Amino acid sequence: MTGPMTPDALEAALRRIGAERYHNLHPFHRRLHDGLCGIDEVRAWALNRYYYQSMIPIKDATVLSRMEDPAMRREWRERILDHDGREAGDGGIARWLKLTASLGFADEDVASTRGILPATRFAVEAYVNFCAKRPLLEAIASSLTELFSPQIIGERVSGMLAHYPFVSRDTLSYFTARPVQAKRDSDFALDHVRRHALTRPEQDAVLAALRFKCDVLWVQLDALWGAYVEGAVPPGAWRPGEAIAREEAA
Amino acid sequence: MTGPMTPDALEAALRRIGAERYHNLHPFHRRLHDGLCGIDEVRAWALNRYYYQSMIPIKDATVLSRMEDPAMRREWRERILDHDGREAGDGGIARWLKLTASLGFADEDVASTRGILPATRFAVEAYVNFCAKRPLLEAIASSLTELFSPQIIGERVSGMLAHYPFVSRDTLSYFTARPVQAKRDSDFALDHVRRHALTRPEQDAVLAALRFKCDVLWVQLDALWGAYVEGAVPPGAWRPGEAIAREEAA
Repeated sequence: MTGPMTPDALEAALRRIGAERYHNLHPFHRRLHDGLCGIDEVRAWALNRYYYQSMIPIKDATVLSRMEDPAMRREWRERILDHDGREAGDGGIARWLKLTASLGFADEDVASTRGILPATRFAVEAYVNFCAKRPLLEAIASSLTELFSPQIIGERVSGMLAHYPFVSRDTLSYFTARPVQAKRDSDFALDHVRRHALTRPEQDAVLAALRFKCDVLWVQLDALWGAYVEGAVPPGAWRPGEAIAREEAA
Repeated sequence: MTGPMTPDALEAALRRIGAERYHNLHPFHRRLHDGLCGIDEVRAWALNRYYYQSMIPIKDATVLSRMEDPAMRREWRERILDHDGREAGDGGIARWLKLTASLGFADEDVASTRGILPATRFAVEAYVNFCAKRPLLEAIASSLTELFSPQIIGERVSGMLAHYPFVSRDTLSYFTARPVQAKRDSDFALDHVRRHALTRPEQDAVLAALRFKCDVLWVQLDALWGAYVEGAVPPGAWRPGEAIAREEAA
């Protein structure tokens, strides 16, 4: 039986997981920001990632529903405001639709999530379920991939602007807003975890939660690679050159 | 608005989904039964598929818990007996462990599910959650991939026996038992769906449930292909030549 870590040692272990497993290490991320993706790969990435974005406020609402402290809820609810906006047309989801619209998808087709890869759906659902079912400490810890997101967003925006004539600073406005929000959110979550994960089993669970979340992100890029780089699009998913199905024929 | 189908038309639509989306069409299945997999690909397939097998009785217990008719429960509970066995060492899960043991994995490592691919975990969890949350009719319909399994099992057993010196009829005993069970189960489920999916929305939901289940199976083979045919093993999953991790280091 190993004893508990100090908060600093726990934070170092969390950061090590990011250094080893965060999806900035995935070949699809490198391909995307190095400008090696064809437009259909960028379209597929944006289309699939929409589902992740759209489920984040639902995930955060399940976490919010389990917080007993009003001060904590005031902090956490900011995440929902960030994504859903103060009014229609505002917020992260609306900004993501600007990106998919600029890539040629109709908002209603994207929002229907009909064309996404089944692996995207299963991974995102797993994240929502994890946050609904696991102890609050672990749900909060699973958000800690945001510790690593300001860097990936920087690489992504500069890489995409440099390499793809079909994206602009305006269509990438989602990412302009995110680093400040992510920094605020991950400061809060990291502080919470440092103060509340005190026993070794709690600390191990926190580390496992972050590993799980890295898996959620990694699986999404694996699926994009298989479908749109290797070209093995699974049945029912959007195929380049085709419209997103409006409904399934019986 | 389209009107309801006759039961025969509904059954034909279900069988069409199988003909278009069942995982016997996946390149990994062909590779496996054609003898083109290396032993490590067969090992990875058996290791990952164990998780699916092991969760089936849990899925079936959630379905059972929602059936109000004792006669229906008597039918459905046979599925749990098939997988869990009448006694220790009996049943589908125990027979699957014979296969993984013959491929060199210790039972406790397999049962820990530590080395499986995250995509396997997410897909199987999605199936269990679907059956727990969706209407009973859809949960039953999602089992209808068994309509198509006797054929795939026949191809798999004959192909694997012909091509792989490291498998035998004894280590493949899981599959010997399955076709009769699957036929009984799919007869029941098909009859239920034919009699209870009477409105068009119910019929559409039944068809969507079967499509969803095909996705659950397809995603698992996609993930095996990426990790063990293409060689892009995701962080944390079993790597050929290495032992399955007993615990994560902090």
